[in-house]
Amino acid sequence: MIDRAAIWDLLAEYGALADAARYDEWLALFAAECRYQVVPRENHDSGLPVALIYCDSRAMLEDRIRALLEANKYNIHTDRHVIGLPRVTERPGGAMIEAPFAVFQTDQEGESRLFATGLYRDRLVTIDGALKISDKYILLDTFAVPSLLASPL
Amino acid sequence: MIDRAAIWDLLAEYGALADAARYDEWLALFAAECRYQVVPRENHDSGLPVALIYCDSRAMLEDRIRALLEANKYNIHTDRHVIGLPRVTERPGGAMIEAPFAVFQTDQEGESRLFATGLYRDRLVTIDGALKISDKYILLDTFAVPSLLASPL
Amino acid sequence: MIDRAAIWDLLAEYGALADAARYDEWLALFAAECRYQVVPRENHDSGLPVALIYCDSRAMLEDRIRALLEANKYNIHTDRHVIGLPRVTERPGGAMIEAPFAVFQTDQEGESRLFATGLYRDRLVTIDGALKISDKYILLDTFAVPSLLASPL
Repeated sequence: MIDRAAIWDLLAEYGALADAARYDEWLALFAAECRYQVVPRENHDSGLPVALIYCDSRAMLEDRIRALLEANKYNIHTDRHVIGLPRVTERPGGAMIEAPFAVFQTDQEGESRLFATGLYRDRLVTIDGALKISDKYILLDTFAVPSLLASPL
Repeated sequence: MIDRAAIWDLLAEYGALADAARYDEWLALFAAECRYQVVPRENHDSGLPVALIYCDSRAMLEDRIRALLEANKYNIHTDRHVIGLPRVTERPGGAMIEAPFAVFQTDQEGESRLFATGLYRDRLVTIDGALKISDKYILLDTFAVPSLLASPL
Repeated sequence: MIDRAAIWDLLAEYGALADAARYDEWLALFAAECRYQVVPRENHDSGLPVALIYCDSRAMLEDRIRALLEANKYNIHTDRHVIGLPRVTERPGGAMIEAPFAVFQTDQEGESRLFATGLYRDRLVTIDGALKISDKYILLDTFAVPSLLASPL
């Protein structure tokens, strides 16, 4: 049985490390064999869950992050993830959690605005005593965003 | 004594089920004998707590939701509740909790915006072993919203 | 060892008391010997952590709040703090926590908008059995705000 405090810490670290641009540590929250996808809500709801971003390993996710950092040299901003109360929906072998989130961006003039909202659906597993994300399905409400998403969700 | 994890799960489910438009399950989070009211903050603060919405049973709340769904055929959008850290303020027989919230709406073009913020004040009771909402008082900051509120808060 | 539920309650009370304008109780969440500072993220990131607000005792913080209340007679609004999932980063003698936040403001017309986002970094200590804030470092994303900050963060 997975400890609830450990689940909440993992979610909190997920947002905090992304916002601090500490991507190596952020990537280490994932299992090496993992899946990460971002699915626009309109696709999800219409039964056509075509992902906007689809990575089926941590290595692929790492490549994606490197490309994002390169692109963001021309779009300088900072991010803030505010993750709401999560719920545990099942726990067969690991835990399945859902948590709503809002991501805010601040530009170089110091103006903050809502960037996107959505829902995390994560499968968590314990590997060598540490809780890791083995599957992250991000249901993205906000699909009117540049197709090259500017911030890791 | 009511378990804290159960309280947090209930709050998380409250938001998640509303956002997923699973209203039958959402309604089942309430006790059959319950009260649900939305009070604009300016009324509350001026000592005139006139409710914008007042339901004094789950059946009445169900009618309200059905009317809302009918109206929303002409105002298609999705919702996202982000509920912040709650606090337990008392627990005589049940628990009394407070939690801040922000609700975001996304329209058919995929643009998300802040819809409303406010504070939940819930009385929770245990009925047949399950935690239920017996009284929900929603202090609504944002009163410049259409009088027919477009999303369940 | 500090109880996690107590940490979360303290954070929740911090936001709730500020939003309810119950500043005496809000101030009582701090140790008498405390530090409170607001540092814009651009300063923090550039290694020049010059604070926008710097108070090195609760008495000084109280003066600051009184000045703010006076100024807000001409800028009437209400606040809503939504504090996301926190994480505990260390606990030597006390606890060190980090939590992301968004503060929303509502004006007299009832319109709500995002005011600021940022990250709390708090050192918490137990004094006479009660958990108190001994050091609050607020990393403020949004620096395009009036230099006289209109709401306690």
